[in-house]
Amino acid sequence: MTTSADTHDSIRAVQWQGDHLRLLDQRLLPAQEHWIECRDAAQVTQAIRDLAVRGAPAIGIAAAWGVAMAAQQGVALEPVLAQLRAARPTAVNLMWALDRMKKRIAAGADAAALLREAQAIQDEDLAANRRMGELGAALIAPGSGVLTHCNTGSLATAGYGTALGVIRAGVAANRIVRVYAGETRPWQQGARLTMWELVREGIPAQLIADSAAAHLMKSGAVQWVIVGADRIAANGDTANKIGTYQLAIGAKYHGVKFMVVAPSSTVDMATANGEEIEIELRDPAELLSSGGKRVVVEGAQAWNPVFDVAPAELIDAIVTERGVIERPDTLSMQAMFGH
Amino acid sequence: MTTSADTHDSIRAVQWQGDHLRLLDQRLLPAQEHWIECRDAAQVTQAIRDLAVRGAPAIGIAAAWGVAMAAQQGVALEPVLAQLRAARPTAVNLMWALDRMKKRIAAGADAAALLREAQAIQDEDLAANRRMGELGAALIAPGSGVLTHCNTGSLATAGYGTALGVIRAGVAANRIVRVYAGETRPWQQGARLTMWELVREGIPAQLIADSAAAHLMKSGAVQWVIVGADRIAANGDTANKIGTYQLAIGAKYHGVKFMVVAPSSTVDMATANGEEIEIELRDPAELLSSGGKRVVVEGAQAWNPVFDVAPAELIDAIVTERGVIERPDTLSMQAMFGH
Repeated sequence: MTTSADTHDSIRAVQWQGDHLRLLDQRLLPAQEHWIECRDAAQVTQAIRDLAVRGAPAIGIAAAWGVAMAAQQGVALEPVLAQLRAARPTAVNLMWALDRMKKRIAAGADAAALLREAQAIQDEDLAANRRMGELGAALIAPGSGVLTHCNTGSLATAGYGTALGVIRAGVAANRIVRVYAGETRPWQQGARLTMWELVREGIPAQLIADSAAAHLMKSGAVQWVIVGADRIAANGDTANKIGTYQLAIGAKYHGVKFMVVAPSSTVDMATANGEEIEIELRDPAELLSSGGKRVVVEGAQAWNPVFDVAPAELIDAIVTERGVIERPDTLSMQAMFGH
Repeated sequence: MTTSADTHDSIRAVQWQGDHLRLLDQRLLPAQEHWIECRDAAQVTQAIRDLAVRGAPAIGIAAAWGVAMAAQQGVALEPVLAQLRAARPTAVNLMWALDRMKKRIAAGADAAALLREAQAIQDEDLAANRRMGELGAALIAPGSGVLTHCNTGSLATAGYGTALGVIRAGVAANRIVRVYAGETRPWQQGARLTMWELVREGIPAQLIADSAAAHLMKSGAVQWVIVGADRIAANGDTANKIGTYQLAIGAKYHGVKFMVVAPSSTVDMATANGEEIEIELRDPAELLSSGGKRVVVEGAQAWNPVFDVAPAELIDAIVTERGVIERPDTLSMQAMFGH
């Protein structure tokens, strides 16, 4: 068993405290390390909707704790499930975690059992991330450079991370020697969160503008693009943070490999392909203002989709805790995940 | 002759005042419309270096006025030429305008003649932009949508603009019915400047994150990407604002057409291809901070190239005031621009 120090893994952003949930407020990083204390499910819902907690797996875990906390408080659970489900439309892990809690509720689980279920969801996510780290890193030739997007690290999961977990594992194994992170406009998850994790864990990395990715690929500095996922369709099409699709196109053009890393709970075999995935449009104000200050002229409009879909034909490997699928398609996805 | 009102053309950012140069400070837009008064060539140099004036043609025009002003003041011109030349390395128009002034100096021109030369450079740029607007707009089918990058409008030129001039002309002719502008990190020229011009001129437009461009293309909303250039090599390879290369790759992938619009002074037949173009790296602080406020954790590093090169094979049309070159290569470039 590797220790935390070995694997650059010291951050836990979702912490159950016995009767309430502590969330590291990701909107304020890196300037402030402020913890939000959620004392009811409505506060958890709001933290998810307002992006205080973000990252598909972390959202699912926080929601599970929200349900368990409601049970502990003797609150009616059906409205809680519905509220939480509506908080973010794209992240399938949210639906998956809530369905898992709902099934236990339907089976007559009491509050103690629901708390254990939430803990299990969290523990399994961490174990899955460790496993994906090993599997993903094994695909990377020693001495490689990688580019990642958004934040897929400890902040986005129970800990360790998905794509960033592969980077943690790859750096520890000397397979990865150069790490680049895209800013990830408009929320700057790469600039604010991924760089915070990497600096804190002592992993040397360089931030780039999202638009510099193709120029970076052309320079030969990166051999893999490694990203997470918010939803993986039955044919391997992958919805992830806006900009992922552009990176996949650029990678194909340059012969750079493209890896998607996500727990199997992100796979949605009921969605045939990317065309069926609802893309969340957020408030244009996220592009028009910055840090509460208007940066674009009054009267301007903006189009603000926050996810896009990388089609399976641009993906070299999908890594889940169940294994690696190279050049994914419906057949290979069904072989691993069923129908 | 069309009037300004017809062509959405009311902005002039570089204004000679008889004995000094007024520059609209582009760093403060859109929050403030502040004019800088440059009363010697050193102030012009600093305005170019600090991006108070930007856009390849506008930089060349401002530099020409700087030289003429120095002549008017009886200052030694050789050091002035050298200072101005060093202010920005990538923009070939700067070198072109200074060479043109230098040639007049070598021919014995007095201050009055140098002032006329600077005025001619400015007037010719405006006329070239009008011509490029017509030529470029004629390539676009009625009812099209377009995406542009950075700012290539009146703020970047003597007036009207290059790529944004084509958009002005195309909107006036009802050929363009949808306009999208990329933010253009890290300086946000698209968000701050292009949106300011478009709103001010009454052209409906939507801002997007740079990373949303491929998703936009996939939606079918845009038929052309239209960009400016900082340098066009002899084979048609084009250096422009970072992110242009990524847009060109995305356009090719989606069957969207890609147009480069720049005055012939941007063409550098002495540079064989894009590999020979020096790419300016700017201070990582431009990515690490925003509005003077640190947004990335202390200790983080960044890689900040501010230009990239779109290879000729990804370009459908290069539009200069001399005409249109479709699918540019060395032969077609030589036929129009000589050796």
